[in-house]
Amino acid sequence: MNLPQEVEDHFSRGDLVAAIAQDASTGEVLMMAWMNSEALQLTIQTRRVTYWSRSRNSLWVKGESSGHTQELISISYDCDGDALLMQINQVGAACHTGERSCFHREITK
Amino acid sequence: MNLPQEVEDHFSRGDLVAAIAQDASTGEVLMMAWMNSEALQLTIQTRRVTYWSRSRNSLWVKGESSGHTQELISISYDCDGDALLMQINQVGAACHTGERSCFHREITK
Repeated sequence: MNLPQEVEDHFSRGDLVAAIAQDASTGEVLMMAWMNSEALQLTIQTRRVTYWSRSRNSLWVKGESSGHTQELISISYDCDGDALLMQINQVGAACHTGERSCFHREITK
Repeated sequence: MNLPQEVEDHFSRGDLVAAIAQDASTGEVLMMAWMNSEALQLTIQTRRVTYWSRSRNSLWVKGESSGHTQELISISYDCDGDALLMQINQVGAACHTGERSCFHREITK
């Protein structure tokens, strides 16, 4: 499938884009990870969210080992094409720590 | 002030972190931009969200020219420290296009 030009431009420069996962029913932001073109295409085709792991340098089907999968509901892209916002259904916890969201620690002044 | 070690680690490698702005009252995700250490420190100290502009290579006080400022309510960081989630009060539109959110276009299959 054809991706938006703004997003393609990042991929063709070899850059990854940031992918934000938001709980489709509660609006809670659960995590942010990275996608290359293949990860994004797979996510759209399979409706199962797939990231690009920068540490493992490989595709990462979210929940493949933990069972904590993410079902894609819809996906938007921002005006400069370097970020995606996904509405998802989360099975279990998004964070590998067992917390529902990866953003479970606050920075205080 | 001291930032969390996971976040500092990215800055000390010269990397930026992704900063997601979420409307504190509605939960709508408005935009994602980038921060370096100085931008994050200023955001926390002034409670006015300040990013690092990669295109202009300079600090970017959101709304400085448009008036569409972002007041910081709280800020969380994710488990690997490469992303921040901010709860904010948005004045006017977050997007330079005039749309409330930068994520106003969907990718469809």
